[in-house]
Amino acid sequence: MARYAIGVDLGGTNLRAAAVDSSGKLIERLSGRTNLAAGRDAVVGDIVDSILRLRTACGDGGLAGIGVAVPGIIEMRRGIIRESPNLPGFNDFPVRDEIERRLQAPVHLENDANAAALGEKWVGAGRDVDDLVLLTLGTGIGGGIICQGKILHGSLGMAGELGHIQVVPHGNPCACGGHGCLEKHASATAVSLMARLMGLGDNLTSEEVYQLAVQGNSAAHVVFATMGRALGVALADLINIFDFPLYLLSGGALAAWDFFAPSMFEEVRRSSYVYRYSKPRIDKAELGKDAGLFGAACLPFMA
Amino acid sequence: MARYAIGVDLGGTNLRAAAVDSSGKLIERLSGRTNLAAGRDAVVGDIVDSILRLRTACGDGGLAGIGVAVPGIIEMRRGIIRESPNLPGFNDFPVRDEIERRLQAPVHLENDANAAALGEKWVGAGRDVDDLVLLTLGTGIGGGIICQGKILHGSLGMAGELGHIQVVPHGNPCACGGHGCLEKHASATAVSLMARLMGLGDNLTSEEVYQLAVQGNSAAHVVFATMGRALGVALADLINIFDFPLYLLSGGALAAWDFFAPSMFEEVRRSSYVYRYSKPRIDKAELGKDAGLFGAACLPFMA
Repeated sequence: MARYAIGVDLGGTNLRAAAVDSSGKLIERLSGRTNLAAGRDAVVGDIVDSILRLRTACGDGGLAGIGVAVPGIIEMRRGIIRESPNLPGFNDFPVRDEIERRLQAPVHLENDANAAALGEKWVGAGRDVDDLVLLTLGTGIGGGIICQGKILHGSLGMAGELGHIQVVPHGNPCACGGHGCLEKHASATAVSLMARLMGLGDNLTSEEVYQLAVQGNSAAHVVFATMGRALGVALADLINIFDFPLYLLSGGALAAWDFFAPSMFEEVRRSSYVYRYSKPRIDKAELGKDAGLFGAACLPFMA
Repeated sequence: MARYAIGVDLGGTNLRAAAVDSSGKLIERLSGRTNLAAGRDAVVGDIVDSILRLRTACGDGGLAGIGVAVPGIIEMRRGIIRESPNLPGFNDFPVRDEIERRLQAPVHLENDANAAALGEKWVGAGRDVDDLVLLTLGTGIGGGIICQGKILHGSLGMAGELGHIQVVPHGNPCACGGHGCLEKHASATAVSLMARLMGLGDNLTSEEVYQLAVQGNSAAHVVFATMGRALGVALADLINIFDFPLYLLSGGALAAWDFFAPSMFEEVRRSSYVYRYSKPRIDKAELGKDAGLFGAACLPFMA
């Protein structure tokens, strides 16, 4: 009987789970909402229910393990979420042990961007390389680093906080305490803010700014060119640091690739001589919102 | 008979070689000048002579191998120096194969800052950890990354070009093509330049600026505080990226530690929440100019 793993991707909005076989083939999936209003215990209950339903559907025998991806800063060894703006109530909660207790089965906990990077390495745009960096462009910016086929964790599991690379000193203040962090200058939130500052409108979403760019609005073009330069500064740093063959971008902002990519590549070419020598690929991720789900399912096979 | 390796550290000024046993104990060392005026072939001849003298002194039987550290950007697989401002004439020269040909023995070629990081990991300030980052503060700034006990190389071997992390966008233009690179704002060269811009004198060395700081000169204090902030920006990025337990600084500028460290730590504490959570050590390297020599000697034992 083929072995499979169960992956769960817990977001602030959606709770998704899937059974995936050892070759990365999807067997079965479940999608639902993350019911934060019902409280933390109810959300944990929903996670456990999803896992049990998939286990029942696929059978106990071939289950290699369970992986759970969560947003926020996690402490690997203790299996806790240290801080998660998107999951109020989960701060310092031993989520791994609690799910294990309810399931009576071992669980691998992972940061969602790390899981997404692993998913892309396993069955996505990174399947042909052993080393890659992923930037997830959303409300904030997350990051995951795959080094020699494995997630780079660092001491506590906090490695890959790439949204907080400083790209504009004395730039926008960030909740992390820094200024000019990448996510303050290249996230969807940053696109909306720049659009407002440029008089495009008070409450435009990044999608609406993108539509304006499509219609030829030159201020919207400037917004995305600025975003691209910020990404280029961070990517140039990452390329000079890692000399990896592949750097992936994911998230809704990919729609605007044609508007931000030219200034991004220009900045990388100018600022990174390792880029000019080594000619790594900078590309779109392939798995979209499923990257974290596949990565979570991959965790038990890596252990 | 105890096994030993021979390490060579080829700098723009000095050529040093040593025989080191497998526990990291120095057996014998040689020091000389790098005679660039005599041309590349003569320098390679001096390297080979040094190795032969050590091999004769220590005996052929226990020789585990030979490691050579060189400044500049190297391409690992081909064993060539792609670009080295400090070794004119060596650009694109297959230095590894040439030394191997003359010695009839295999040689490991490595970038000098990478070798220094490995040396500190082996017998220096990093001997108790598996993961560390080293910044070498000299005329320029180099870097080496040790990940899980090994040098992080990247695709071609160019990883760790940490002197080119951007700390001041639109800052000082750098020979690499970028602007505001760390080494343009925190190297000995940068200290001299800042001192000139602040009217301290036209051709002060960083050592002389340090002496002014010791004497209480407030402009010299500002120079080192500025250097510290630039280092802090780069270190905050590195800590957010790696979450490693140890970050080491080496080079002559360490003498000015008391003048640049306060603003460096202030910037890191402010800008890196991974630092605040993970509390890594930021410290002085221990091996001084011998770090690269020990690292070069360590290479054969790692292979």
